[in-house]
Amino acid sequence: MNPVEIIKKKRSGLALDAKEIEFFVMGYTNDQIPDYQMSAFLMAVYFQGMNDVETAALVHTMLHSGQIVDMSKVELPKMDKHSTGGIGDKTTIMLAPLLASVGVAMPTMSGRGLGHTGGTLDKLEAIPGMKVQLSLDRYKELTQSVGLAFVGQTDEICPADKKLYALRDVTGTVESIPLIVASIMSKKLSEGIDGIVFDVKCGSGAFMKTPKQAAALAKALVNTAKRSGKLARALITDMEQPLGRAVGNAIEINEAVAFLRQGPSDPLIEPRLKQLTLDLACEMYALAEISKGRKKKPNKDVRALLQSALSSGLAYSKFLEIISLQGGDTEAIDRGLPLAPKKILFTANKRGFVGSINAEHIGMALIELGGGRRKTSDTIDPSVGFHFEKQIGDAVKVGETIAIIYAQNAKSGEAAKAMLESCILIQSKKLTKPKLIRARL
Amino acid sequence: MNPVEIIKKKRSGLALDAKEIEFFVMGYTNDQIPDYQMSAFLMAVYFQGMNDVETAALVHTMLHSGQIVDMSKVELPKMDKHSTGGIGDKTTIMLAPLLASVGVAMPTMSGRGLGHTGGTLDKLEAIPGMKVQLSLDRYKELTQSVGLAFVGQTDEICPADKKLYALRDVTGTVESIPLIVASIMSKKLSEGIDGIVFDVKCGSGAFMKTPKQAAALAKALVNTAKRSGKLARALITDMEQPLGRAVGNAIEINEAVAFLRQGPSDPLIEPRLKQLTLDLACEMYALAEISKGRKKKPNKDVRALLQSALSSGLAYSKFLEIISLQGGDTEAIDRGLPLAPKKILFTANKRGFVGSINAEHIGMALIELGGGRRKTSDTIDPSVGFHFEKQIGDAVKVGETIAIIYAQNAKSGEAAKAMLESCILIQSKKLTKPKLIRARL
Repeated sequence: MNPVEIIKKKRSGLALDAKEIEFFVMGYTNDQIPDYQMSAFLMAVYFQGMNDVETAALVHTMLHSGQIVDMSKVELPKMDKHSTGGIGDKTTIMLAPLLASVGVAMPTMSGRGLGHTGGTLDKLEAIPGMKVQLSLDRYKELTQSVGLAFVGQTDEICPADKKLYALRDVTGTVESIPLIVASIMSKKLSEGIDGIVFDVKCGSGAFMKTPKQAAALAKALVNTAKRSGKLARALITDMEQPLGRAVGNAIEINEAVAFLRQGPSDPLIEPRLKQLTLDLACEMYALAEISKGRKKKPNKDVRALLQSALSSGLAYSKFLEIISLQGGDTEAIDRGLPLAPKKILFTANKRGFVGSINAEHIGMALIELGGGRRKTSDTIDPSVGFHFEKQIGDAVKVGETIAIIYAQNAKSGEAAKAMLESCILIQSKKLTKPKLIRARL
Repeated sequence: MNPVEIIKKKRSGLALDAKEIEFFVMGYTNDQIPDYQMSAFLMAVYFQGMNDVETAALVHTMLHSGQIVDMSKVELPKMDKHSTGGIGDKTTIMLAPLLASVGVAMPTMSGRGLGHTGGTLDKLEAIPGMKVQLSLDRYKELTQSVGLAFVGQTDEICPADKKLYALRDVTGTVESIPLIVASIMSKKLSEGIDGIVFDVKCGSGAFMKTPKQAAALAKALVNTAKRSGKLARALITDMEQPLGRAVGNAIEINEAVAFLRQGPSDPLIEPRLKQLTLDLACEMYALAEISKGRKKKPNKDVRALLQSALSSGLAYSKFLEIISLQGGDTEAIDRGLPLAPKKILFTANKRGFVGSINAEHIGMALIELGGGRRKTSDTIDPSVGFHFEKQIGDAVKVGETIAIIYAQNAKSGEAAKAMLESCILIQSKKLTKPKLIRARL
């Protein structure tokens, strides 16, 4: 096979067959096809797309470029959730122990934050002593014995994806649905799961800014997962504002812990975060039932089961168990992780309603505080962050606190405050609160 | 400026400004922008195109990446012709001495053949002793003293184009009109000419297979030349079959010499070749008149002038003069260059009319004989080739010769003959001969 002919075939809009995709992608992974041919190919894919069969072939090749974790000894149904990235999204940290406590394993591999989006691994590392870089064997062991594990990707997983993603990042070829789908799916399938629920974010803080883009991505993800023999569903959820009250690393762990410990009935838990977590848990539980060939429970029964796992303390003890097994300081969690010393209030300068809290800009403001990364080599300060007292649609009076900024010093805190000023808008007209779940498929 | 942002800007269909184009192309030429970013950019250009202003900026950057020949001491108007590449096209070799003999300099830099298309340099090198790799100083000197020179591009000319073309060739990004235009124009403008006539080939043997594609390329070439301050015209000409009777290197020199020596009134000169050469010469002469601010002569007067330069022997003596100055053996030319020893006749196997002579396949058959190149490092046998007795539309009887094959041995000759069999079709229905000049702009 000839790499130039494959590039031209894709360029002209023809579908590639599985062998051509494998030849090209593995050739690149093994340094037999140069990066300049791959980048031309990626740009051709950007313009011409890939159909479901091609995308599945790409996933298959990328998946098999590395190891697939053998989870066959885990008897529980194995489900994962994948979010396309947002601000303040700590649902993975809550979902994994919650599901494990009701008999669904969630062997999730997570990533780090980059740019305006946060990463689950960074949040977990805010816990003193917590180790997330485990061997694949330890990952399997923990999933088998506890029903969950919080780990990062190892080098054995999808080397093709690592190499491709680095190239896409510097060649303007990130924003392509089949390439996004293949990158996500190849990593997720390597976990040896039975099914997956996608949380496709949509809005100012999301990769997909419009409902149409989000729907296209969600559809491609579900189709590709099904073609790969996995159960799959997707929710398209709002990311016009941060999810929950906390944005940062330690502060998000504290919010997740509050949910797990106090339960969803606690009025202090932010309702949207609560709703999304329970909705995702219900979807994952439903897929687990299907995977076991069991009769599906009515949604309200599942919700009651989850509520009881939370109120009984079962979910929280699962959380403490895995944290402890991964070296984390559970007493520190119980006390609440410490936040940065300089507390600055961001208050309303006029009476009205919160009209927007641009989530992407909040993510950038977190980087300003030192709590996020501009580039992968940056280090993170886990103690900085934001606590939002108000959300879009809430009424505010002059001088009322909208957000609390936790900074290391006045300078960085004031810089972050200035950024909040430009991205939190107060309007005089009342508005309806944005709908959290925009679509389900 | 950020290379990724420039790629994304082009990717999204926005026009780049001249500074962005210069930054990107010179960055690549100077090894500051890696090839994988350039190839993604080239593929984005393939899909999104470039407007006239962008194309002119690209030409300007590529032109100024190297030297521009200072032809200011040449007093004659300086015109060139550029053909987009065909089979059997030896017009440059006839035009340059013809024009020089009527007071128009043609300082043409030519290329070598690759794939199915032939190259003027290869044809000239079929002349024993002929040197085409001259210094820029010698090139200027000859143009000044003789009015023409047959030279190849030196390394000082358009290094950006050399590097870009090599990358386009291996990344499926050759077939883009702005990139083709920039590659042609940057090289042509480096010759220090006043004007140019484009011969845009259209048909089976051409790069542009359809009249629509050819028209788009012709228009882009003329517009870009005019934006660069040059006089410009284009003819769109038929390349459904080889041009003239001869295809090969030595054999095409012999055909060009016959035209120059015997004049266009000689009935042995193939009429289409004669017409195209005189039409191109008329266009070039007309541009020369305009460049000198002279009143334009009527076309029939120009044609008479050209005919007289040929019949008087002036044009041929210009040809012998330049060949001799470039080391070529003029006696060998006078005698006729020797052809390969094995002569095989390709005859009609049925009575009818020649329906097609696929020019691209004839080019491939020449490679089979050893007279063309698959890759740039291949060497060429100048003595092999074809002589076509018949052309599209001609009547043939069973056993009548359509073409004579000149091969080194029976094996390669028979292989070429088998290729002719599949690309020369005889039909029972009479057909009109294809029009040579399809459009003029």
